[in-house]
Amino acid sequence: MTETNPYMERALEEARAAARRGEVPVGAVVVKDGRVIGAAGNRTRELRDVTAHAEVLAIRAACAALEDERLEGADLYVTLEPCTLCAAAISFARIRRLYYGAEDPKGGGVDHGARFYRQPTCHHAPDVYSGIAEREAAEILRQFFAERR
Amino acid sequence: MTETNPYMERALEEARAAARRGEVPVGAVVVKDGRVIGAAGNRTRELRDVTAHAEVLAIRAACAALEDERLEGADLYVTLEPCTLCAAAISFARIRRLYYGAEDPKGGGVDHGARFYRQPTCHHAPDVYSGIAEREAAEILRQFFAERR
Repeated sequence: MTETNPYMERALEEARAAARRGEVPVGAVVVKDGRVIGAAGNRTRELRDVTAHAEVLAIRAACAALEDERLEGADLYVTLEPCTLCAAAISFARIRRLYYGAEDPKGGGVDHGARFYRQPTCHHAPDVYSGIAEREAAEILRQFFAERR
Repeated sequence: MTETNPYMERALEEARAAARRGEVPVGAVVVKDGRVIGAAGNRTRELRDVTAHAEVLAIRAACAALEDERLEGADLYVTLEPCTLCAAAISFARIRRLYYGAEDPKGGGVDHGARFYRQPTCHHAPDVYSGIAEREAAEILRQFFAERR
């Protein structure tokens, strides 16, 4: 996997678009059988919805596209380590593989804090691959917060 | 606090209504200044949305009612211990107090598994009160699953 993975590139585009909307720049894409079936950037402010994270919106879009509550065999690409809420949503949706960019030691729920996939209360854990395009993903976030200071 | 708390009674009503719709019967209510500003039962099947848990829908309704992304000073009543996803959503929404009915050792994220509010990645933890109307809340769930077998 190189940093030019097309699905992660699409997730990075969604993150940049989120930044232009004034939202914390995180982007996510759901892929099944080589096809993008859901893509979104963070919209928590616009939608006034604390659950409107990129991953949740991409999963909701994919479920609507497939007319299914579950996404068996689908993979999710996201620019930042999912938070605890998104880690759980990814599990509930039965995502097969999770690819994420930058780590999030302060808010991540996959490899930090709750580490949801290692809990006995987690009934489906995706395979997790981290560090894909992580410099670019982190730079988008760094620049966003630098400009707002 | 007795088992006739009116907000938990309303949450139990939402749980019963969810059961009648064929949804796992959990109900939740958001209260601020003595007023119910959001109430919902679980609708994951109907909405084909793995995040459409009672707590999330009640929080979304309350945020829409207040036109605010955060619910400072609001309390949430729910019939079952919130899962990890809902525990995080409750934290993100800045709920002040969480009152829940039955414990959920298999899927709970407050007093089981991820125990999100005890994690360093949790930046706001509500005060938690459990066991309110727990027998009634558990009985609604028990009956629902017994009838579906």
